[in-house]
Amino acid sequence: MSTTPNLDYGSMGFKEIIVKLDGDNTIAIITLNRANERNTFSPLLVEEIVEVFGLLDRDDRVRVIIFTADPSAPAFCSGAMLPQGDLGWSSLYQSEAEREGPQAHRDLGGVVTIAILRCRKITISAVNGHAVGAGITALQLPFDFRLIWEGAKLAFPFVRRGIAPEACSSYLLPKLIGNSASLGLFLSGDTYSPRHHFLQPLYYSIHPNRSNVLPAALQLAYDLAENTSQPAIAMTKALVWRGKDTIEEQHLLESLVFRGLSGAGDGNEGVRAFKERRKVGFEDKLGDMKGELRPWWTEVDIRHRKAKL
Amino acid sequence: MSTTPNLDYGSMGFKEIIVKLDGDNTIAIITLNRANERNTFSPLLVEEIVEVFGLLDRDDRVRVIIFTADPSAPAFCSGAMLPQGDLGWSSLYQSEAEREGPQAHRDLGGVVTIAILRCRKITISAVNGHAVGAGITALQLPFDFRLIWEGAKLAFPFVRRGIAPEACSSYLLPKLIGNSASLGLFLSGDTYSPRHHFLQPLYYSIHPNRSNVLPAALQLAYDLAENTSQPAIAMTKALVWRGKDTIEEQHLLESLVFRGLSGAGDGNEGVRAFKERRKVGFEDKLGDMKGELRPWWTEVDIRHRKAKL
Amino acid sequence: MSTTPNLDYGSMGFKEIIVKLDGDNTIAIITLNRANERNTFSPLLVEEIVEVFGLLDRDDRVRVIIFTADPSAPAFCSGAMLPQGDLGWSSLYQSEAEREGPQAHRDLGGVVTIAILRCRKITISAVNGHAVGAGITALQLPFDFRLIWEGAKLAFPFVRRGIAPEACSSYLLPKLIGNSASLGLFLSGDTYSPRHHFLQPLYYSIHPNRSNVLPAALQLAYDLAENTSQPAIAMTKALVWRGKDTIEEQHLLESLVFRGLSGAGDGNEGVRAFKERRKVGFEDKLGDMKGELRPWWTEVDIRHRKAKL
Repeated sequence: MSTTPNLDYGSMGFKEIIVKLDGDNTIAIITLNRANERNTFSPLLVEEIVEVFGLLDRDDRVRVIIFTADPSAPAFCSGAMLPQGDLGWSSLYQSEAEREGPQAHRDLGGVVTIAILRCRKITISAVNGHAVGAGITALQLPFDFRLIWEGAKLAFPFVRRGIAPEACSSYLLPKLIGNSASLGLFLSGDTYSPRHHFLQPLYYSIHPNRSNVLPAALQLAYDLAENTSQPAIAMTKALVWRGKDTIEEQHLLESLVFRGLSGAGDGNEGVRAFKERRKVGFEDKLGDMKGELRPWWTEVDIRHRKAKL
Repeated sequence: MSTTPNLDYGSMGFKEIIVKLDGDNTIAIITLNRANERNTFSPLLVEEIVEVFGLLDRDDRVRVIIFTADPSAPAFCSGAMLPQGDLGWSSLYQSEAEREGPQAHRDLGGVVTIAILRCRKITISAVNGHAVGAGITALQLPFDFRLIWEGAKLAFPFVRRGIAPEACSSYLLPKLIGNSASLGLFLSGDTYSPRHHFLQPLYYSIHPNRSNVLPAALQLAYDLAENTSQPAIAMTKALVWRGKDTIEEQHLLESLVFRGLSGAGDGNEGVRAFKERRKVGFEDKLGDMKGELRPWWTEVDIRHRKAKL
Repeated sequence: MSTTPNLDYGSMGFKEIIVKLDGDNTIAIITLNRANERNTFSPLLVEEIVEVFGLLDRDDRVRVIIFTADPSAPAFCSGAMLPQGDLGWSSLYQSEAEREGPQAHRDLGGVVTIAILRCRKITISAVNGHAVGAGITALQLPFDFRLIWEGAKLAFPFVRRGIAPEACSSYLLPKLIGNSASLGLFLSGDTYSPRHHFLQPLYYSIHPNRSNVLPAALQLAYDLAENTSQPAIAMTKALVWRGKDTIEEQHLLESLVFRGLSGAGDGNEGVRAFKERRKVGFEDKLGDMKGELRPWWTEVDIRHRKAKL
């Protein structure tokens, strides 16, 4: 997979997100820029998130990606944009789906979720406001770390709107926190606090003020950008999300991955730094990964036949 | 699947359970009626539970099903009826199994569990007493919500009786709360309080007195009966329990389900009520579901060749 | 599987572990004996652990296996032995792997993990010191119960060393505690206390002093050795770790296992003791298990073509 040149994200014309690099260009901060619309999900927002995660995935400078919102916005994200006029939910259908029938519909939340989950860098969702629907599914569940404001109101309200979980949340939430908590959250459709016991394993940390969340995310990001290896991170994420069915097969896979990572520059640097009791200086890029580290899984193609994405 | 006419559950001759409708016939309350036998599992009880969950699944009036016991009974359920005479556990074998050999045995707890898990309505177990064996496996794990009395003594005592987990608990418990807690509970076979950290994600709420549990379950049931859509609930349960192996396949499935639900009456009503800031009035029934919402999974047939169930 | 005669573990020449029987020879206590090397993982240690778990699995006297360390050692286990000289991680490759290429490498942590997970007896890890890398993966995750010292420092430091999770931890940890906590622990590579909320379901109990952990493990072991059935334990472990993909298939499997266990001596003894309100006296051995209880799963062969193990 080819890498991108040193892009200037500020000049790329994003409208519904603001993208900045920080920490010597090792950290990308994406800020939702639809405060006037309660940071709701829109088709353009979806397009921009998918695009930027694809670019950041291949930008060798970037090690950590933070997604956040303006802490003074009415919400971190209030879910899908309210359907316009009398169209109901069908205003969310893509024109492609209209032509090709029900099988062609692609849930936009799921498109975002998969783009984030496929990104091989460390991803952090800094949830500094209320989050409903896609604001907790697409914009939280596919991330590696979730940090949150203690006062956030959280809801998976689907069954109270006549629909079912979207954005791959019916896949991710059970794997993240188990079926008991997931069914409780999904089937009640109620509003929960981050301190609710069903959500206990979901958040890395919980913060008293909205303005504390991004600084805490940045502190975590600085540490991880400095001290972790890009190929090691990418392989760890893949081992967890794309693992094998049996322990024996996973053992063979881990062995192959270990062999691939340990023979590389970062693997050697990791040992040397540890022995010399000094900070690591990891330099390997994702494009440098050895053959053993190529994807071992196959991905069902979710694109439309004529899709741009 | 055809729906049942407006049944009068009180006149159907159930002996070991009492079945009443509440909340304008939208809520069914099933009460275990074997207090004199410590509410143990019996073959007749199994038959009646399977029958009533099948009927309630197809009774279009009913949106929520609560299972509970008399709060003054010695226990919510003390597990399997003690085998009679010298037969040991083999008194639990069905005659069919005797003729057809070991492969024909059907664990009665599992028969109950599957009947409850297949029910497409919201199910709540209101555990207002001690629960052992099938009292925590079949009568709690397949439900969507579990509410419990703080003083309940809970045990999976199988390994201390020379047997192994039943009622599909070796399938459900790991998915509900993870393998670490499940193995701890199963392999110790010990008695636990609902407050034990292994059980933390299992219960929706914990109540100080036995008499508090059913009222709390009813309060939850009234809310959900009024404010959730039947097809949305049925599809949410199926997405979690009958999901696909990969995130891409689940995305395609969620997209199809969204399309099916959003184009229906409840989907439109959900959007309209939200925009008009009023209560929803969901009217779609399970029999009305569009083609996209038909079961996408196959179920291994667990019946005996000549079974009645 | 044939059983072993009454072995004298003290005379078998183990160097890096000490093996003693306790509780009328029903409990085996394995103590890591590399305090001078901070109890790090070495190839000889791996060989000895694999050997002793294989022997104990087939030693009919033994019902519970405790793994622990000297509570005055610098650590319970500090992970892999630091690679020697300039070899980096490649010093951990086996010579077989050198000849046969990357596909032939077998992660030594994974070899240990699988040996422990395959052991059909109750296994307890008594973690009375700090645990890093293999000290928390191979030496904790495959066990049935984990008891720990409150002050233990725990880390999965792989991404900070340029490598990825090993010892099948990328398979076991998500199944034990879920993907949210697992990704947080793996991708931060940080040091955690046993009280951290991500680790909440992992430990059976947490103890204030290092010297409390083994006595607590022994107390649990005495109870379980006296009161649980060997075939019931073996089948329970297999139902959880080697379960089927659907609830219907698991129901058929549980039914077959119930039939096999209930017709045996321990199954009958379990019922009789319960009815007579006396302690059980289980005597069935793993070699006695009926045909229904033979392994129903297949295991990918992880050995080298010419391996000794």
